[in-house]
Formats: sequence, C-alpha cells, structure tokens
Amino acid sequence: MAKLSGFPELLPADRAVELAVTDALRRVFELHGFANVETRAVEPVETLLRKGEIDKEVYVVRRIHDDASPGASSSRSDALALHFDLTVPFARYVVENAGKLQFPFRRYQIQKVWRGERPQQGRFREFTQADIDIVGDGTLPFHADVEVARVMAEALAAVATVLGLGAGTTPGGGAGLRAAPEELFTLQVSNRKVLEGFYIGLGVATPTAVMQVVDKLDKLPGEKVLELLAEAGLDDASARACLALAEISTEDTSFVERVRALGVQHPLLDEGLDELASVVAACADVEGVRVTADLRIARGLDYYTGTVFETRMNGHEQLGSVCSGGRYDELASDGKRTYPGVGISLGLSRLLVPLVADGLTSSRPVPSAVLVAVTDEESRPASDSLAQRLRSRGIPTEVSAAAQKFGKQIRTAERRGIPYVLFPGEPPSVKDIRTGDQVEVDPDTWTPPAHDLTPTVVGTPLSKETSP
Amino acid sequence: MAKLSGFPELLPADRAVELAVTDALRRVFELHGFANVETRAVEPVETLLRKGEIDKEVYVVRRIHDDASPGASSSRSDALALHFDLTVPFARYVVENAGKLQFPFRRYQIQKVWRGERPQQGRFREFTQADIDIVGDGTLPFHADVEVARVMAEALAAVATVLGLGAGTTPGGGAGLRAAPEELFTLQVSNRKVLEGFYIGLGVATPTAVMQVVDKLDKLPGEKVLELLAEAGLDDASARACLALAEISTEDTSFVERVRALGVQHPLLDEGLDELASVVAACADVEGVRVTADLRIARGLDYYTGTVFETRMNGHEQLGSVCSGGRYDELASDGKRTYPGVGISLGLSRLLVPLVADGLTSSRPVPSAVLVAVTDEESRPASDSLAQRLRSRGIPTEVSAAAQKFGKQIRTAERRGIPYVLFPGEPPSVKDIRTGDQVEVDPDTWTPPAHDLTPTVVGTPLSKETSP
Repeated sequence: MAKLSGFPELLPADRAVELAVTDALRRVFELHGFANVETRAVEPVETLLRKGEIDKEVYVVRRIHDDASPGASSSRSDALALHFDLTVPFARYVVENAGKLQFPFRRYQIQKVWRGERPQQGRFREFTQADIDIVGDGTLPFHADVEVARVMAEALAAVATVLGLGAGTTPGGGAGLRAAPEELFTLQVSNRKVLEGFYIGLGVATPTAVMQVVDKLDKLPGEKVLELLAEAGLDDASARACLALAEISTEDTSFVERVRALGVQHPLLDEGLDELASVVAACADVEGVRVTADLRIARGLDYYTGTVFETRMNGHEQLGSVCSGGRYDELASDGKRTYPGVGISLGLSRLLVPLVADGLTSSRPVPSAVLVAVTDEESRPASDSLAQRLRSRGIPTEVSAAAQKFGKQIRTAERRGIPYVLFPGEPPSVKDIRTGDQVEVDPDTWTPPAHDLTPTVVGTPLSKETSP
Repeated sequence: MAKLSGFPELLPADRAVELAVTDALRRVFELHGFANVETRAVEPVETLLRKGEIDKEVYVVRRIHDDASPGASSSRSDALALHFDLTVPFARYVVENAGKLQFPFRRYQIQKVWRGERPQQGRFREFTQADIDIVGDGTLPFHADVEVARVMAEALAAVATVLGLGAGTTPGGGAGLRAAPEELFTLQVSNRKVLEGFYIGLGVATPTAVMQVVDKLDKLPGEKVLELLAEAGLDDASARACLALAEISTEDTSFVERVRALGVQHPLLDEGLDELASVVAACADVEGVRVTADLRIARGLDYYTGTVFETRMNGHEQLGSVCSGGRYDELASDGKRTYPGVGISLGLSRLLVPLVADGLTSSRPVPSAVLVAVTDEESRPASDSLAQRLRSRGIPTEVSAAAQKFGKQIRTAERRGIPYVLFPGEPPSVKDIRTGDQVEVDPDTWTPPAHDLTPTVVGTPLSKETSP
C-alpha cells in the first residue's frame, strides 16, 4: 500500500485547486474556439519510438495473459505503450481523421501522460498536460503562431488569477493577504529563424550545433558557453556575438533594434525578427502574465522550425520550463500530405504539485457551501428536503451524516470548512460558523454570498509570508 | 496508423457531447457535496489480482528498459498494471489517506479504466467510468445507501436531459423533434438481504448459489432457471418461490406486499424489505428517470452485502447494466480498521459510444458561437480585437483563418456549424447564417441568444425517427 514514487495523488482539497485550474484553462481555450479532444492512452510502441531520444522513458503495456507467455517480450512490433506526451497521439489522430476534420484544426487536450523516468523534483512518471495546437493541411499561416501565443498567455494569466498568485491579485480565503509583487509566469518567446539566420549571417557552418550550445545558457555560465562555441569551431568574435544575441531579452519589440545593433545581416534573420515582433506585440495587452522576447530560448533538441516558447514560474525557476512549444513545419504526415502545426504544452502537474507541497490548497475539501443539520434520525427526510430546496437553486449542500447534538454538527462543518449550517425549524435558521451569527431564513430564497458558493484557493506562499 | 479495436476515440463534435455529459454529472455530484478525487492509473499487480476473477483482463505496465531485460516477465511481484475499475484504487486511496480524510467520506471520480478483454459490442479496452461512493470509518449508516441512490438517480436524469433523451424533453438542435416516450434510464434497485433472507426463510441451504442462478434470469428463460435451481438442490415449490420473488418489479414500495404474499418469513428478509423500501421511496420524486425495486437484481459475483443497483438504458437493453453498484460492508481494510462503503459506477463510454454510433452528436465541432470575418490580412488585428471584445463577455469566438471573399468565409462558418458571422465595419454587422438575416451591432453589447452560446446535442435516434 506504499505510495508509488513519481505518481502524485492529491487530497480532495488540493484536487479542488487542480479542478479550478483546468476549468480556467478550458474556459480560455473554448472562448477562443479551440475544440476539446481526448486520445487513447496507448499507442503502438513503434509510433512512440520514432523519436529515438524518448526510447528509455516509455511504459510498455501488455495483457497479463500475453505477458506470461514465453517470448512475449521479444514481440515488440505489435506492442502498445502509454503515450509520453500529447503531441504524438494528436499527430496520429489528425492523420487518422483528416477527412473528417476542418483545417486549420484548433484543439485543446488535457490528459495524463506517462514517462518511465527516474523520479526527481518536478519530474513525475504520471502527470497532466494541457496542450493547444493549431494544425493546417499542407500550409498553416503564420498568424497561427501569434494566436497560440496569445491564447496561452491568457491561459497562464487565468491560472495565476485562480491560484491567487497573479500580479496585483489578492488571494481568496482570508483578509490581509498581500498582492503578488510580479507576474507568476513569464512566457518567453524566441524564433529559430532569428537564431539560425543570425548564425548563418555570421558565417557559422553548423548553426544547429550552435543552437544546442546556446540552449545550455540557463545551466552553464557564459564563459563555459563561449568555450563550447569555440569547440564547435567558432572564432572568438562570432562566439561573443552568439552570446550577445542570446542575452537579449525584452518585454517589447525593442529586441529588434538590439539584434540589428549586432550588425549581422541575413534574410532568414529578417523574417524571424518580423515573426517574433508580431508575436510579442500581439501579447502586449494581456494582463497578468509577462511575455518576453528571449533569444536564449532555442529548444535545442526539438524539431521546431520557427517560433519557440518556454515559460518560467516566478519563484520556482528550478522547475525549468513549465509550458513549452513552438512551430513544427511537419507536425504530422501520412506520406502524401503534410500537416504543419504550432502549439504549446502546459505541464499542469509540474507547476501545481510543488505549489501544493508549499501549502497551496483550497478553503474546503468538499464542494458543500451548506451543511443541513439533522435533529433526529426520524426527521432526516425533512433535512434532506431542505437540502434539496437549496440544491435546486445551485447551492452545493450536504446533510449531516449523524443526528448528533447541534454543537457537534457545527464542529463537523467547521472541520470541513463548510461556511454555513442550516437548522430545520419553522422557520429554519442559518449560522455563519465563522462569525457565529445565526439568522432565520426562507430556504427557497436564501443564498450564500457568491464567494462562499465554491471553494477558494488558500495557503499560497504569499499568505504564509504575511503571517508572523 | 490503424485504429485500435476497443480503444474508442471521438471526433470533436462527439467529444463535445461527452464533455456536456461529464459536466452534468459533475454538477449533480457537487451539488450533493461529493468531492472529486483522481487516482493514479496504475496499481501494483498484486493489489489488482486480489479479485481472482479479473486476472486475465489486466494490462501490465513496465518500463521498456526493464521489459527488454531477461527474466523480466517473471518478476510479477513488483510489477504495475492499469486499474480495471475505480473501486480498487479508491479503496487503496482511502486506506492510504485515512488520517487526512473526514468520514463518512463522499467522493466522485470520473476517469479512464482499462481491461484487456476481447472487444465486443458495448465492451471496450479503454473506457470512462463515473463513480460515486460514500465510505465510513468502522461503520456507515444505512442512509448512505439512500443517498447514493438518490444522487445517481438525479445524475441519470441529468444525463438524459443533456442528451435530449429524457422523457418529455425536447432535444436541442432542431425543430420537430418528438419528446421521448419514456425515461432513458431505469435504475433497478434490489437488496441482498431480501434475497438471502427469503432463501433462508425457505430453508435453502446454499443461498449464495441460488443468488448466482437467479442473477442469470436476464439471459436464460424461467424454465431453465428452475432447472438450475433444482440442480442446486431446491425442491420444486422452493424453486418456484425463488422465481416468483425474482419476477417482482414495482415502481413504488408495493413490492413489499407482493413479497409478503409469498408467505416466507425471516428477520433478514424484514430488514432487507425495510431498506429497499426506503431507497425506492426516497427516489420517488426524482423526475426524468425510472427507479424500480427489481428483485431479479442480485449481482451474483460481487461482494455486496445489502443494497444492489443495476441500470438499463431504454432501447439499448443489449448493453446490459450501464450503471451498477451496491453496499460493501468491507470496501477497504488495512487489517486494523474496516471501511464499509456504498457506491455506484456509471459506464460513461458504454452508454455514450453506442449512441454516438447511432448518430448522436453536437450541433458544431467547435465551441465558437461567432466567426469574425477578416477583410484582408492587413486588417486582421482589427478582427482579432473585435473577437476579443466578444470573448471578454463570455462569447466563444474565432477569427477567420483566411481573408477570403466573405461568401467563402460564411461557408466556412456554415461547415463548422458556427451560427453567427461578425463583419468588421463602422459599425460592424452580424449575420445569422441560418436565416441569412444581417444586422448592424455594437460589439460591446451584442450577445447571441443563450441557446446558441454552447453547442447542443443533435442527431438523436428520436430525431432520425421523425425524418421521412
């Protein structure tokens, strides 16, 4: 019965936070007209192994009956495995259903994925991702890049607001909480064409190798990166120019001038700068998230061809990027047709589980806003009927499990964080257990204040900071 | 790239129906104060194999690296497998977190489960279940049985309404649809104590064996059941009494009299009749679902100890029970403490996939209620900004992917089932593409009618019946 390392499970109050976050994501995605899709959990092992890198992380799935039979482990060809991301299954879904989808196809997908990695901080073996992608049939206009950036920027801002960790927001669940000093998320945007065009303009022979070195700038000091660039064959001036490019980070389109000031010229660079400027400009008015052009972002090992995204969570930089993606000119292909795509994947568990470990939770572990007291077991139906009258008006309500003394029933509500107790009677009365105030009410009209109807997020690191 | 048999995947318009159904379920469960929980997808194989029957249906999961190493398939003891239901993982979760939960603990859980069965109609290898359970610490009052019955009855009624298949409801998405002639779901309730008490009162030596025979009454004719009862050692009069009991089915508490009329006496029978009458009486006022006391329901192979549930879907009886459960006096145990529970599990995929195959879908494959037209690529930001003004008021809106002629953009909206096209201009105007009416609007106040804001369920079997 021991917990399995790498397979996080949330207690009900913490799960309520996760639900509130997925609701907020879904709302933003649907407001922008993205359709929801779910794909099966398994794919043929062969499909998953096409990206060689992932090989060792895949979980193979086999019927126990087949598993026990001799030689089973050698018949890899028809074996199934759990998907390790939502991109590969989505690409397969697009090809399989192409005739029934309308392109550009815009979808969101919120599902579990599995990786057989060694568990470590911020890495899980089972975790939830929330992806958006736009995929075209043959071609996909660049404005799709602008759109996914804008939608995910709004989604990140909505998540910060739900968590009570948005800049300027005040977390629910208590008085005296300080507003967050800055945005929780920084969406960092870059563009492979800027980097590649710059390197080619500099005369670098191996732009991809340079990109993979620059990608390590988060983990290595600048001096070490210069060394690695020298090893990759760059002269000192070129290496320093690459480093200077990578150090450019602006919250507006002023990065364009700073790149130009480095004096490198190439048509691909021009195209990339135009694209990146469009993305950053389109996100400028999204409140509650910081969006930066950040030229150290290269996503070295992935097959992106233009726009690339990473996302840092303020105060949790050690988690790395919590939301990444970019433009693939070949998201999927069936041999005849090619489906270009652009998308971003938010690591929901990766960002949420550490916050929960830090004390983030919700104000109650149950949806109930009201507990209806039970006078004695004989009159339980009367209490049930009172509860039903509240529910019919959308008020989550539970009935006491035991007809104990009222004081005990009130303490039960208190322990569960349920703010109101309704006592049967003629007329019934309601006690706000936080203030102790009790008033007679009409059960067909009384409604708790809106902020008490659903649990709110509490216990943020900010709220702890303000306690003595 | 072939589809995998037994792993159903829905197209976006069909997935929208599934989402609407899970939203309706969640709403009912939360109104009753049930907390949501998600458990990990895997359990140790040993935990899953405790119920011997399931053995052959389990999917074993193993890191591909471990899988390839020799002797791997023999080390079953620490192997993991995908859960085949939500009850076993929930029982484990309760024991593991008992110190942090408050009892009686009421939770709902909507997740995928996996079974390595041979796929056949209504049976899948991956499917979604929606479970509710109430679990106590040591004891659990009987009124929990009444509560789960009531909550699931309301949930079934809500599902029928969402699907436009409730008795008296009119499906959305078109005129001229007939109201359903009867309830979509029949929740059949029985009680093991009634059956066992009756058999013991009759002098039957092996009540469990009799229960398992009676349980086959759906599949076998009465004569065959009598034969099997004779083989189980019953004399003809006793066998006929057992059959007579099993044939009792009432929509109210009149079943009590009919059982009494069979002349059998036993205290366990009395207790069971009281319990069953309470459950049926408590569900009497739930509209949109039929709830019956049905004494052929025994759930022969499961370890229920009192109340048992099955559910038939009208017109789809061949699917068997789509929603089953009951009272376990030992849902979970850690050796020291015992946790009794009562719950019901709704087979969401089992009921939905056949309806979708019959033509049930939603009115559009996208959430968008409005498509904003784009005059030319230069003015795309103006169209984006118009869209943003609608979204800020909760109207799902997408912007045309291509600045084609307006006629083409209108046809795009038509193909996607998006009811309104907004044209930029001073002032902008909106066309209802169903009527062709176009009117000038203020984009900061215009709102589509509520029934157009979200996709509605269409294409029900009923709507097809009414077409020529």
